[in-house]
Amino acid sequence: MKLIRYGDPGREKIGVQLDGINYDVSALGGDYNEEFFGDNGLARLAEFVKANEGALVPVPAETRLGPPIARPSKILCIGLNYRDHARETGTAIPAEPIIFMKSTTSLNGPFDDIVIPKNAVKTDWEVEFGVVIGKRASYVAEAEAFDHVAGYVLHNDVSEREFQLERGGTWDKGKGCDTFAPIGPFLVTKDEIADIHNIRLWLTVNGKTYQDGNTRDLIFNVPFIISYVSQFMTLLPGDVISTGTPAGVGLGFKPPVYLQPGDVVELGAEGLGTSRQVVRAYGG
Amino acid sequence: MKLIRYGDPGREKIGVQLDGINYDVSALGGDYNEEFFGDNGLARLAEFVKANEGALVPVPAETRLGPPIARPSKILCIGLNYRDHARETGTAIPAEPIIFMKSTTSLNGPFDDIVIPKNAVKTDWEVEFGVVIGKRASYVAEAEAFDHVAGYVLHNDVSEREFQLERGGTWDKGKGCDTFAPIGPFLVTKDEIADIHNIRLWLTVNGKTYQDGNTRDLIFNVPFIISYVSQFMTLLPGDVISTGTPAGVGLGFKPPVYLQPGDVVELGAEGLGTSRQVVRAYGG
Repeated sequence: MKLIRYGDPGREKIGVQLDGINYDVSALGGDYNEEFFGDNGLARLAEFVKANEGALVPVPAETRLGPPIARPSKILCIGLNYRDHARETGTAIPAEPIIFMKSTTSLNGPFDDIVIPKNAVKTDWEVEFGVVIGKRASYVAEAEAFDHVAGYVLHNDVSEREFQLERGGTWDKGKGCDTFAPIGPFLVTKDEIADIHNIRLWLTVNGKTYQDGNTRDLIFNVPFIISYVSQFMTLLPGDVISTGTPAGVGLGFKPPVYLQPGDVVELGAEGLGTSRQVVRAYGG
Repeated sequence: MKLIRYGDPGREKIGVQLDGINYDVSALGGDYNEEFFGDNGLARLAEFVKANEGALVPVPAETRLGPPIARPSKILCIGLNYRDHARETGTAIPAEPIIFMKSTTSLNGPFDDIVIPKNAVKTDWEVEFGVVIGKRASYVAEAEAFDHVAGYVLHNDVSEREFQLERGGTWDKGKGCDTFAPIGPFLVTKDEIADIHNIRLWLTVNGKTYQDGNTRDLIFNVPFIISYVSQFMTLLPGDVISTGTPAGVGLGFKPPVYLQPGDVVELGAEGLGTSRQVVRAYGG
C-alpha cells in the first residue's frame, strides 16, 4: 500500500494511493501516527480499502499533499553513510553509524516550499531513503529489525551548512529548521519493495542532476541501523530513520553550490515516488 | 500555579499542587501538551481551580508523579552554559550557545528510576533549570522572549558520557536514552518566580553534594537562549529548553565518578521543587 496525507498543513486527512490515484480514507478515523502504526493500523487500513473497493472517493487532483506521516516523536538520521558522500565532505568513513536528529517541526510536505532561514546562505539538499518504524523497538537484533518496519519514504534532508558546521556544537542548528524535512509523496509499505538495498535515488536542481546514487552503497545497511539506533533509545511507531545521502550535495562542489530563492529541487527514489520543492527566502 | 501529572506512565492525569498538596484537575480535560499551552490552557486551568476552590480532590499520597508535561515536540538543551562546567569538561567557553536535543522518549517522571543502558559504564547526572514554552516562537526578539514562556521545571539531564563523546558524531547517542530526562516534580508558572537568574540548583548522589550552582552564572541567559534557538527552528507550546548544568558532574572528577545501580540521585532548584531517582541496571 501507499499511504498519503492531504489537505491544509496541520489539518491533513489520510488517504491511500492506488494505481497512481489518491483516495480519501478518512472514514477509517485517526491519523498516520504512533497510535495508528502501533495498533495494527496498516492491517486495519488494508481491510478498509478492500471492504470499500470501488467506492473510495478520489482526492481532487489539485489538493496539497502533506507528509505521509503525522509528526513523529523522532526524525533520526544517519550521517555520512555513503562512502562517496563522506569523501566529498572531506570526512573519514565512520567506524560506527553517526546519529543525529532533525527537530520534528522541520517536517514538510513533499511539494511544499523549502524556506531559506533568515541570515542563511548555505542551504543544501540531501536525497535520502527513509525508514518508518511500525513497532516499538528497543535493543532489537539485526535479524528481527524488519519486524519493526512499517515502510519507506523519500526524504530531502535539507541542511544549512553554516548553521550545521560553523556555529558550534552539534549539527542541530542546521538540520531542524522549519520546512527542512520534506517527506513523501507517500509511505510505501515494506511488502512493496523487493530489495531496499538496491534502490536508485537521485536529485536535481533546476533540472540539473546533482545526486544519483543507490542504497547498495550504504555503509551501514537498514537492519544494522535499526538495531544500532535501538541500543541508544526506544524507537516508537511512526518514527523516521533517514539512512544518509549519496554524493552530490552542494557542499561537495568546489566552489560549493547552495540553494537560492526560485530554485526548484526535484528528487526521487525507485518505488518511493518523486517530490519537488521550490526554494524561497524567509518572508519571500 | 504548580502543574503536576500523576498516575501510571503513559496514562497520567493532570493535577495542580496547592500548598504542597496535589489535587486532581482531570475534569478540565486534555493534557499538559502543545494544545493546552497553545490554547490558553493556563488561564483556563486557573479559572477551573478558582471555580472549584475547596472542592478539588487530593491525589492519594503514594501516587506516582509523571513528568509535569506530556511528551513535547522537542527537548532542547544548551550545552556548556556555565563557565565552571565548561572548565571541568576541559572545553572552551562557547562563543554562542551550543544546542543539542534529547530524544523525547527519554522523558521520565521525577521519582522514576534512572536505567543505565545495556553496555553503558559512564552514566552521569546534570541538574538543570528548564524552560517550558507557552506560545509558538519563531524569530523571537530577546525583549519578547518571556511572552513565550509558560513556566519552569527541574530537569536532570542524564548523560552517558561514552555514548555521548566516544562513539562518533553528535551527542545524541548519550543524551536521549530511555529514562534520561526526569522532569518535575511540577511545572511552576512564570509568575511565581521573581528572578529566574538567581536560582540556586543542587544535586547529591547518595547524600553527597556534587553540584551546587546558581543560574546567575549562566553564560547565556534565558531570554537570549529563547531568542537564539528560535532563529533555527520554531518552538512549540510545551517544548522544553534546558539551560545547562553547573560544575560538579561525574565526568569532571579525576578519576570520573559515574552512577552505579542502587545509587540515589537527589536534586532541586529554588522554587522548582526537588526530585529523586534511584539508579538501576537495564533489566535489573
